[in-house]
Amino acid sequence: MNLVGLDIGGTHVRVALVDEAGQVRAQAYGPTHAQRGASTSISLMIQMVRDLLSGASVPRLQGLGIGITGPVDAATGVVSNPYTLAGWPPTDIRTPFAEAFGVPVTVDNDANVAAIGEWWMGAGKGSRRLAMVTIGTGIGVATLVDGRVQRAADGRHGEAGHMVLNPAGPPCYCGANGCWEVLASGTALGREAKSRLWNEAGVLRRLAGGVPDRVDSRLLFEAAAEGDEPARALIDECADWIGLGLVNLGSTFMPDRFVMAGGLARHLETLRHRIEAVLQRHSVMVPYDRPLAAASLGEGAGPVGAARLALDAAMASHTDV
Amino acid sequence: MNLVGLDIGGTHVRVALVDEAGQVRAQAYGPTHAQRGASTSISLMIQMVRDLLSGASVPRLQGLGIGITGPVDAATGVVSNPYTLAGWPPTDIRTPFAEAFGVPVTVDNDANVAAIGEWWMGAGKGSRRLAMVTIGTGIGVATLVDGRVQRAADGRHGEAGHMVLNPAGPPCYCGANGCWEVLASGTALGREAKSRLWNEAGVLRRLAGGVPDRVDSRLLFEAAAEGDEPARALIDECADWIGLGLVNLGSTFMPDRFVMAGGLARHLETLRHRIEAVLQRHSVMVPYDRPLAAASLGEGAGPVGAARLALDAAMASHTDV
Repeated sequence: MNLVGLDIGGTHVRVALVDEAGQVRAQAYGPTHAQRGASTSISLMIQMVRDLLSGASVPRLQGLGIGITGPVDAATGVVSNPYTLAGWPPTDIRTPFAEAFGVPVTVDNDANVAAIGEWWMGAGKGSRRLAMVTIGTGIGVATLVDGRVQRAADGRHGEAGHMVLNPAGPPCYCGANGCWEVLASGTALGREAKSRLWNEAGVLRRLAGGVPDRVDSRLLFEAAAEGDEPARALIDECADWIGLGLVNLGSTFMPDRFVMAGGLARHLETLRHRIEAVLQRHSVMVPYDRPLAAASLGEGAGPVGAARLALDAAMASHTDV
Repeated sequence: MNLVGLDIGGTHVRVALVDEAGQVRAQAYGPTHAQRGASTSISLMIQMVRDLLSGASVPRLQGLGIGITGPVDAATGVVSNPYTLAGWPPTDIRTPFAEAFGVPVTVDNDANVAAIGEWWMGAGKGSRRLAMVTIGTGIGVATLVDGRVQRAADGRHGEAGHMVLNPAGPPCYCGANGCWEVLASGTALGREAKSRLWNEAGVLRRLAGGVPDRVDSRLLFEAAAEGDEPARALIDECADWIGLGLVNLGSTFMPDRFVMAGGLARHLETLRHRIEAVLQRHSVMVPYDRPLAAASLGEGAGPVGAARLALDAAMASHTDV
């Protein structure tokens, strides 16, 4: 089968031609051109898919899936994201692709398709209940049961990144104090580094060239790698919060695997020991037998997961006939 | 169809004869006789079912379901609960019933069958994603998707009652500090009342007749009803923790309904205002549109839910043929 998966971000789009076994046959990468407006941007993406198909000598598609920077309504295919897709009104992303290629088009948000990609071909292979935790600017969680995204009855996805872990913690835009994201995201780490470590005569200050605004989680990890103790202690604290969030995800969703993704997950080996110690400490009720896995497909997870959506839709319509 | 549901507790067993529409045709209630050993106890329960069937002039069953005080392995039908069923070795509860009545027997723990009962015929009717929260001695949570209990890939049920809400909180036997149960169960409320309110010259002390060990959550609610301010403040604090646990359940499981059960739920109208205010405060990411429902079947939920398990098994085997 010839399936196309797109992962549409605010700046770039990734496209992959994938077969029914999940193998990528061809791929493309280019700007989203979001600032040129929805209609032009979509036309250019359609052309990108056409070029990919003709380059791979594929005359006909069986399905096309789209992951896009949310929120997106999977039922209607309408994306409403005025932040990342600046200037776009609520836009039906599905119909133009369906008309251009004459196939059913399935749409979901980028976090969900990435999780599906990891479940199908990456670090989540074989998992029955997968929690993919993406820690970067924020904390996003996708939960999959047998590869299907769990969502609210009305289609909304979960917000496990905003569960409360410490009501005495700092306020978040979500309305809570001490939610997971405000305690353990890359943003949180940078914020705490700036406010708590700047006055130390430490490595961090040198690495930032004396400019407080340059302090972020990346510099903090660099400082810790150089042996800076306060930097290391702050990272350990963050790891403890990451662990506690996983504990709660374990007791509510009962995953058989955690797949860690996003910027902070690149430092998983630095964080792993503390995170796993927290899971161990809380293993009385929920046994700790789930080693943390790092996402293995990287940016490729999105298009592959989107292609899997297309495959499922194609199989379902085949069964219906 | 003639379906029998049993709810087997440590002291009593409830049996109901239920039709495929969920209507109870006949019911019985008696001692479990757990202390007489597993084999005798089971024989007596089988006799109880026989008496119920002959009294209702039902010659033949289509299915039988059992809810039992856990832990129970739903796959093997083996219950392993040396606490509530004192002296029982791990016991196959399924085979004796299957042999006695010649029908498929389905087994699950009592919390799960009660949730299924509420979903089928009670306060959870029509819910797609139901979270039933039982607050009493502890906090137990059952999560249902389309009436099916969500469980780990290996069959274990969740432990949402032990999610961590305040790492600075008191220690729990589960290994955590400040888990939901240790902050918001009836036991927690009694414990805090005893340690924090005893020295107040308040209503509580009078109600307890000067005996500290008599202080429990029931007396605390009585004191509050008499207008005792410290008692009221402590109950409000507990309601806030109940609310915060629901917030986290909302963000991780995305229920469309919360059904509240157990001893504390009997005071739901006293607690509701504070609980719903917490949900409201945290409604930025997960809209608050889920009024709390009180379980409506009471002790009847278990046998009805167990009968539903039997119905599902009968329908599934019918489809297989």
